[in-house]
Amino acid sequence: MTTPAVPPPPPVPTVRPGTPAPTPEPGAIPPPDIVRAAYAELVVTDPAASREFYVDLLGLVVTHEDEDTVYLRAFEEYLHHSLVLRRGDGAALAALAYRVRSPGEVDAAERYYRALGVPVERRAAGATRGIGPAVRVLDPLGFPLEFFYEAEHVPRLHQDYDLHGAGAIARLDHFNIVVPDVARAERYYRALGFRVTEDIRGADDTLYASWLHRKDTVHDIALTGGDGPRLHHIAFSTHERGQVLHVCDLLGARRRSAHIERGPGRHGVSNAFYVYVRDPDLHRVEIYTTDYYTGDPDHPVLSWDVRDNQRRDWWGNPVVPSWYAEASTVLDLNGKPQPVFAREENHEAEVTVGADGFSFARDTSPQVGSPS
Amino acid sequence: MTTPAVPPPPPVPTVRPGTPAPTPEPGAIPPPDIVRAAYAELVVTDPAASREFYVDLLGLVVTHEDEDTVYLRAFEEYLHHSLVLRRGDGAALAALAYRVRSPGEVDAAERYYRALGVPVERRAAGATRGIGPAVRVLDPLGFPLEFFYEAEHVPRLHQDYDLHGAGAIARLDHFNIVVPDVARAERYYRALGFRVTEDIRGADDTLYASWLHRKDTVHDIALTGGDGPRLHHIAFSTHERGQVLHVCDLLGARRRSAHIERGPGRHGVSNAFYVYVRDPDLHRVEIYTTDYYTGDPDHPVLSWDVRDNQRRDWWGNPVVPSWYAEASTVLDLNGKPQPVFAREENHEAEVTVGADGFSFARDTSPQVGSPS
Amino acid sequence: MTTPAVPPPPPVPTVRPGTPAPTPEPGAIPPPDIVRAAYAELVVTDPAASREFYVDLLGLVVTHEDEDTVYLRAFEEYLHHSLVLRRGDGAALAALAYRVRSPGEVDAAERYYRALGVPVERRAAGATRGIGPAVRVLDPLGFPLEFFYEAEHVPRLHQDYDLHGAGAIARLDHFNIVVPDVARAERYYRALGFRVTEDIRGADDTLYASWLHRKDTVHDIALTGGDGPRLHHIAFSTHERGQVLHVCDLLGARRRSAHIERGPGRHGVSNAFYVYVRDPDLHRVEIYTTDYYTGDPDHPVLSWDVRDNQRRDWWGNPVVPSWYAEASTVLDLNGKPQPVFAREENHEAEVTVGADGFSFARDTSPQVGSPS
Amino acid sequence: MTTPAVPPPPPVPTVRPGTPAPTPEPGAIPPPDIVRAAYAELVVTDPAASREFYVDLLGLVVTHEDEDTVYLRAFEEYLHHSLVLRRGDGAALAALAYRVRSPGEVDAAERYYRALGVPVERRAAGATRGIGPAVRVLDPLGFPLEFFYEAEHVPRLHQDYDLHGAGAIARLDHFNIVVPDVARAERYYRALGFRVTEDIRGADDTLYASWLHRKDTVHDIALTGGDGPRLHHIAFSTHERGQVLHVCDLLGARRRSAHIERGPGRHGVSNAFYVYVRDPDLHRVEIYTTDYYTGDPDHPVLSWDVRDNQRRDWWGNPVVPSWYAEASTVLDLNGKPQPVFAREENHEAEVTVGADGFSFARDTSPQVGSPS
Repeated sequence: MTTPAVPPPPPVPTVRPGTPAPTPEPGAIPPPDIVRAAYAELVVTDPAASREFYVDLLGLVVTHEDEDTVYLRAFEEYLHHSLVLRRGDGAALAALAYRVRSPGEVDAAERYYRALGVPVERRAAGATRGIGPAVRVLDPLGFPLEFFYEAEHVPRLHQDYDLHGAGAIARLDHFNIVVPDVARAERYYRALGFRVTEDIRGADDTLYASWLHRKDTVHDIALTGGDGPRLHHIAFSTHERGQVLHVCDLLGARRRSAHIERGPGRHGVSNAFYVYVRDPDLHRVEIYTTDYYTGDPDHPVLSWDVRDNQRRDWWGNPVVPSWYAEASTVLDLNGKPQPVFAREENHEAEVTVGADGFSFARDTSPQVGSPS
Repeated sequence: MTTPAVPPPPPVPTVRPGTPAPTPEPGAIPPPDIVRAAYAELVVTDPAASREFYVDLLGLVVTHEDEDTVYLRAFEEYLHHSLVLRRGDGAALAALAYRVRSPGEVDAAERYYRALGVPVERRAAGATRGIGPAVRVLDPLGFPLEFFYEAEHVPRLHQDYDLHGAGAIARLDHFNIVVPDVARAERYYRALGFRVTEDIRGADDTLYASWLHRKDTVHDIALTGGDGPRLHHIAFSTHERGQVLHVCDLLGARRRSAHIERGPGRHGVSNAFYVYVRDPDLHRVEIYTTDYYTGDPDHPVLSWDVRDNQRRDWWGNPVVPSWYAEASTVLDLNGKPQPVFAREENHEAEVTVGADGFSFARDTSPQVGSPS
Repeated sequence: MTTPAVPPPPPVPTVRPGTPAPTPEPGAIPPPDIVRAAYAELVVTDPAASREFYVDLLGLVVTHEDEDTVYLRAFEEYLHHSLVLRRGDGAALAALAYRVRSPGEVDAAERYYRALGVPVERRAAGATRGIGPAVRVLDPLGFPLEFFYEAEHVPRLHQDYDLHGAGAIARLDHFNIVVPDVARAERYYRALGFRVTEDIRGADDTLYASWLHRKDTVHDIALTGGDGPRLHHIAFSTHERGQVLHVCDLLGARRRSAHIERGPGRHGVSNAFYVYVRDPDLHRVEIYTTDYYTGDPDHPVLSWDVRDNQRRDWWGNPVVPSWYAEASTVLDLNGKPQPVFAREENHEAEVTVGADGFSFARDTSPQVGSPS
Repeated sequence: MTTPAVPPPPPVPTVRPGTPAPTPEPGAIPPPDIVRAAYAELVVTDPAASREFYVDLLGLVVTHEDEDTVYLRAFEEYLHHSLVLRRGDGAALAALAYRVRSPGEVDAAERYYRALGVPVERRAAGATRGIGPAVRVLDPLGFPLEFFYEAEHVPRLHQDYDLHGAGAIARLDHFNIVVPDVARAERYYRALGFRVTEDIRGADDTLYASWLHRKDTVHDIALTGGDGPRLHHIAFSTHERGQVLHVCDLLGARRRSAHIERGPGRHGVSNAFYVYVRDPDLHRVEIYTTDYYTGDPDHPVLSWDVRDNQRRDWWGNPVVPSWYAEASTVLDLNGKPQPVFAREENHEAEVTVGADGFSFARDTSPQVGSPS
């Protein structure tokens, strides 16, 4: 470690005007009115092992379970589930589900995606336990999405403090997906009515990552540049940082700290406090807290330079290589793994060697015996 | 990252009986009655830069300063200072000062070290501003130690919450020194009346590190095996984890995150929450909180296996190489750098490759495009 | 205090279906599309004293100030202000401002209130510094409301942790008003597009209080039954409970604890952590944190029984009488104090004698010398 | 509530020199060397109800239990218990136990109290389960004290985070007793080797309360002026404020908030964060955190004026009358209730009418309809 005060200051974030929904072309089919990221369905190879991870370690609540499937929710949620773990032969993402604003918006989703020419599937109420009539599509980015409005209500346990562990998780917050072409994916999500809150760009304006929201938080979906389509992670939120820390302490107590992949830390992007853990199938889960309100229509975009080594971790801690490289396979509507396409633009992990973990700012070469 | 559930469980800590003071040999000179680690005097090359670091970034309080020296304390301290920064040509440790229980114990320290045959120096009151009559010695481990009782009282600011930043530091907690032979250093400190609270050992009973205390906390001094004598770090404590996190957030806000070397994290040893920062001269400072009470005379020793990758970080996060390798030069009583002797036993950083940061449990090799 | 285990359990909250916007009558003028509670304009008698309170004690940021007016915002806000303090002869509320979704919605507000037959005033851009074209109305409940879309953007300081005190306030959260007829006020606000999240009712279905929202939190407006129209309080939110506690600690350090009126505590209603402070003119300000997400369209209503002594404080701590009795005068559009009408239904403070602070559960009669 | 800025500033604390042990008279029997407050034995009328309170609600750990007795400890403790609940006909304190520094100090305690002429009883190892040879005395203040050194070691659970609830209690901290003559009690405890850290005095130098310590915290024993001898409370400590708050949240969740008597709050004296709860027999328990280090031999005394309404609560919140008036009966060595003697000096609750809860600073008279 050489003197830390020397390096030139890295580029700091800039503020750009907000991104209202683009004007649709005349005659275009309007997108469904999406409320928020609502639940994920993950294929797991050993539901008992997964249940132990999500329930005994992370503290999620079981709404229902049978031999092959576990339906989970967090303490503040009153819909039937925000996570479904379903037994399968290979770990994968089966669906990312968005809640829409009314039953009619489920139909709107069907119309919208049929017009896009992608696979669309109507699902009767109960096709997923606890969920009403729904539409599943394989979206233009290659992801299996679901749109639903109706869902079974179950008790919110937000004041059942006697059930809350010290690491109580409040609710599902967002999805993060890996896509080869972030700019294209951002255009697609903006057309769906999402607004950008933050992004990471290169000096050449290459877009490395983008965060977009529907509810009043920093994001419901994040787009991470890489070989895709793959699922980077799903994220649950807690109320305070202490709850994120306790998740880690508890994993340590059970001698399961190997589940911790990255963090805890403070994000630059989103300003949230976080830790990333990996489940028994290596699906990645973020525990996330205290980002900020984004609900105003002109909310500006905070744009980070890819060379800014506080963008991914505000404290400049290096991002572990697995976090950039690994992600979950996604399935098509028939349960077949989607092919992965290589990112053609620069990879963030590559351009930030020197800026992210291995940079001037964190030269970790030993200087044994030197004056300091 | 391969499936985290696979690895065999690492060895867990064992509990050994406490370590009362060894019976002195007949006729032996009794050691001084030490209260606690009290202050450190660091030589810095640019006092203005150091002041900015310790005062503007860490939030310590200036009791006094002149052109070449800054005297600092934390919010709960009523003695004149717990840190002295003195201008010099090369960054180094000038003294580690222990407070003793009475004026007579200063004399006891003089007798004790003269009997040991090491350099001893009486210092008149005010030789260090704010400190009464003192004795400085170059101890058998090669460190410049001071023993004092009298010191100027200044206002404690523990309830001056309007002055406390969000990262308020309460008090100096401990010193950590690098010594080639930890077992020898432990014997020396036990003879001085310190008791062991925790240690790290190998399967062959090699002693890699040891923590010893006088006040009712986990340690006043920690012994880290390595090439020495060198100063590994000094540590200040806060009351809560949120204050440690804020120190990091503030460094990020000032674009000074490069000062953060390791953490924040939860220690295995001591159970404390921590972060390590490096000052402008690369002196290492730990911000530390919520260890535990150790004041009972039979307090047992918690002994960690060097292969346990939760010993240094309870969450299993890797220790950066600089943390093992780098440390501050120490001076003799004439201000001359002490020669550094190589550790002859195994280095912890070497034996824990595979257990600490690069282990089975944290295989970070990319698996791009794999199912997960 | 007699044995606390004896009393019969109080009634617990019940869950009712959500309250979608009522179907407007045919031909009705649609209400403006409101985004959220945006700013309050308070008349204060001594702006310097008020500035000291809001800036030096609470830590709000001054966007602009002149001799008679101070414009303040919190650390996460990018609009020009969320609080205006304007000098006047008597302490009062001059306006509660809602942000609407687009410039056209300002016109919609004008149409809507003109159709209601209440006083309406167009205000040119800059009539309030930093605010674009706006409409002010004296609404049917007797409150001066403003509707605006355009506002000057200023830097968000959400990551300027070096500026944040330990009690950093993030943003304005909500308004709470006193109205004689809560049911009528609730109908009015529901017609405006607000949805109820929680309420307090008596056994006879008397409505004592109601919480309604536009943004994804528990409320933008709360309706408190009492003599009105009066302003009960405005509320700012922090991210964590520790920040609320620090506001209190700092007031203590400045020997200004008399500003604390009630709390800190945990609300039953909203589940938020809170403290109420009074400014130099006795305007009441709540510091509030960690309520819950409410943005789904079918969010159910949590309905509390007025006899439940955990409804106002989850820990059962008594509500001080001033909190029920005192509130700020509101002005009409000409700056004249609005007359106050008496509540004709029961007052919550009266029906809850026995349930709130003076109840079986908190019998505080001394029993000196008794076995316990 | 009238304008809070008006009142004259209350008197602030003053700093006095520390209180070293007084010089014993020639030939005096030296007192035992006490380490710390170690455990309390409470007589309870329904052990099952008490167990539910201390274990299910407060989260203490059962080391052992039989039909009539429950032995409890907190998560960081390795001695057999810090609280014994024993069935009896009337709720009372059976013993306050201090740990001494060695087996020989148990004998020293016997000699010391025999010289004082008070009842003394030797107890064989196991007389209290888990405790070695001990001495019980009825001390000059009328309290049943125990002195012991040997005790059974049990596992410390300080890193068993999977067992810790969100309100995890770390260890017993102190006892607080009610005595009619505080100055006399203070002299007695100082002769026993305790040092004063803080006190509350009147303008006439009346001593209302005093805090004294052996271990490095603000107190092992507090002396509260009132009719006595009675036990005011025992206190357990947590690491952070959030854990104190969770105890309250959990009591609310179980609809047991009536157990909360006072707080949560920040003490003026000790600067600790606290809440007082009452057990099913109305024994009072404090949950306490983040006081400060006191272990230096010249630690100064912080002396509070009884008229300072931040002395008992830094936020100026009123002390409920039961807290001043109620306390537990204490037993003699034969299990007979000790007679209670009236305090002859002023009672703090009386002199602080006007300064504590009912003072100028917290005038809570309603001003319905006034401008504010």
